[in-house]
Amino acid sequence: MIAAGNNLGKMRATAPLVHNITNYVAMNFMANVLLAVGASPAMVHAREEVAEFAALAQALSVNIGTADPEWGAAMLDAARVMNDHARPWVFDPVGVAATRFRQSLSKDLLALRPTVIRGNASEILTLAGMTGRARGVDAGDSVDAAIDAATALAQSTGRVVAVSGPVDYVTDGTQSYRVSNGHPLMTKVTVMGCSLNSVIAAFCVGQPVLEATAAALASYGLAGEAAARIANGPGSFQPAFLDALAAQTPEALSEGARINRA
Amino acid sequence: MIAAGNNLGKMRATAPLVHNITNYVAMNFMANVLLAVGASPAMVHAREEVAEFAALAQALSVNIGTADPEWGAAMLDAARVMNDHARPWVFDPVGVAATRFRQSLSKDLLALRPTVIRGNASEILTLAGMTGRARGVDAGDSVDAAIDAATALAQSTGRVVAVSGPVDYVTDGTQSYRVSNGHPLMTKVTVMGCSLNSVIAAFCVGQPVLEATAAALASYGLAGEAAARIANGPGSFQPAFLDALAAQTPEALSEGARINRA
Amino acid sequence: MIAAGNNLGKMRATAPLVHNITNYVAMNFMANVLLAVGASPAMVHAREEVAEFAALAQALSVNIGTADPEWGAAMLDAARVMNDHARPWVFDPVGVAATRFRQSLSKDLLALRPTVIRGNASEILTLAGMTGRARGVDAGDSVDAAIDAATALAQSTGRVVAVSGPVDYVTDGTQSYRVSNGHPLMTKVTVMGCSLNSVIAAFCVGQPVLEATAAALASYGLAGEAAARIANGPGSFQPAFLDALAAQTPEALSEGARINRA
Repeated sequence: MIAAGNNLGKMRATAPLVHNITNYVAMNFMANVLLAVGASPAMVHAREEVAEFAALAQALSVNIGTADPEWGAAMLDAARVMNDHARPWVFDPVGVAATRFRQSLSKDLLALRPTVIRGNASEILTLAGMTGRARGVDAGDSVDAAIDAATALAQSTGRVVAVSGPVDYVTDGTQSYRVSNGHPLMTKVTVMGCSLNSVIAAFCVGQPVLEATAAALASYGLAGEAAARIANGPGSFQPAFLDALAAQTPEALSEGARINRA
Repeated sequence: MIAAGNNLGKMRATAPLVHNITNYVAMNFMANVLLAVGASPAMVHAREEVAEFAALAQALSVNIGTADPEWGAAMLDAARVMNDHARPWVFDPVGVAATRFRQSLSKDLLALRPTVIRGNASEILTLAGMTGRARGVDAGDSVDAAIDAATALAQSTGRVVAVSGPVDYVTDGTQSYRVSNGHPLMTKVTVMGCSLNSVIAAFCVGQPVLEATAAALASYGLAGEAAARIANGPGSFQPAFLDALAAQTPEALSEGARINRA
Repeated sequence: MIAAGNNLGKMRATAPLVHNITNYVAMNFMANVLLAVGASPAMVHAREEVAEFAALAQALSVNIGTADPEWGAAMLDAARVMNDHARPWVFDPVGVAATRFRQSLSKDLLALRPTVIRGNASEILTLAGMTGRARGVDAGDSVDAAIDAATALAQSTGRVVAVSGPVDYVTDGTQSYRVSNGHPLMTKVTVMGCSLNSVIAAFCVGQPVLEATAAALASYGLAGEAAARIANGPGSFQPAFLDALAAQTPEALSEGARINRA
């Protein structure tokens, strides 16, 4: 049983500095999401400073959505720093099936064993070496189709893997949870998934990774439910979502979280 | 006579994947605009993957607002892929008069004959080789002053040219339309024009280009009218605009579109 | 005594084109802020065009938040153009204490004597060669702790320095003001400080720099107060803030500005 509110409370007490090397589309919204949940965001990528900066951060999120070779190298630099300091870092394999460049960069990142990998079903299937029907960066197979892949990936990396969908699935290869918070409007707003990864990174600071990841998924989904109740569409959803993240109390999260052993 | 609602309905049924190589300012809002209208966005620019990714997309938009030589080369790579597959791509010559770099890159893009060119009057005048009084990226001459330039440009490329303004003008060099949907608040929000180009790209997939472009202009302007009715200024306009795009029905568009033969 | 409303009125009458070389996180919001206050934004960074573009602009803001060596060189190019034309430019030393790269680039920018430097206390302390306890890009010492540093920095550059905090401090090394407009919610939204610098740049066009800077700080803070009255959190604060900037009249600013000689 996960008391997700405790994880939220601990994250806020830490107020971790999260270093993000993410895509251009996500940067502003991700920073606002991190501020809303109570963490501190920083976006830094230049190779001249990325490792030095990573050493100041308590967690890292990397996202290959608009990467190029320079940025890819910066991601690897920063991930190594986190590994050296035993700090959590989260990998978002956006659209990994789409191009050889993404597959190659993802392979290099995987070799560094990210603390958490979170993607949609087709991305997790691709990473696990199975066949994803990738279409752009959003699409793909059902979460259920990716459960074996997620388990295999978690076992081969020895880390945690999360599959996003109507019901999220998160596993460390042995224990698994399903998290059923969320709302369909979340799929009509760009970079909702990208920004979630930085929240997972924040929750993982000083907390058990599997539980912290499940709690982050529940927190994020619960805020989405609250926002959807007052939104008139995908535009008004965004400010309402940030408001809901900021207003969410640990008590409300523990009460509203729908996390079940899988 | 254009039944714009039919164009919207067909675009939504296709839900095209639109590849965008655009400026940094526009990326997030453009992605949300594409999701709101019912298309699927992707932003990809690295030369190591841009052509491979373009081959997966059904349409492309390119925008030189914050380009550099690397990004410019990626735009040319992606545009060639669209030409090879006879898929639509839309060119936004942001601030083309401002610098020689923009003029040179625009000349190279023009040589690939974009399916649609959309810009403000001074941008179209510059492209047509006439004299635009360019000031930054927003300013310029009246739409009427650019009609001859638009016609000449459409005839020389054999494609469609649209001039944005209080009343938009769109022409294939022979047939022309005026579209008078829209609201002045749209000029007080950044990247509204940039994002429109990606919507035009989405509408053009599998549809006659001149009609699809006029329908996209009307759809966008009509959503702006709806948003302006509930907005208190340029800030609240943005979420209201995304909501209005998502809520717009084909019937409402056919009824509200103000498209006239010019 | 500063009649801040006069400064706002003059800025709007000029409607200056402000060239910004800023971080990726800030670009969209900064452009919308500039449009809301009545200025005209442009984001241009490629070395192939940055100097040519700067010559068209009436003011410049530079921000090292996500800089790399190429962008740094572009900042220096553009700043030299502004100096050559005796036009104002504003420097935002985001997170300068964090890495050697930031310190080195900041040193080069400082050598060009920015018209205004605005940062938080730890950033100003770092620039002045004192010891800042820098943590990421947000944190730091109290404004009071940075007053001597700000004065020293203003005297060594011969320009204006502003320290942001609950009460802002702005000085030219001889005369100083405290500006106490603002609201704590402004610290829960990303790039509020970054975007402020572009507003300061707009206000400085053709106006006395110390007074214009104080007026810009008051205008921005007053809009924040208005937005906070109707916001439900950091999400709804953002559209409300842009609305408030656009709706602010010179009269309301002169009445609401809390600027005092320090």
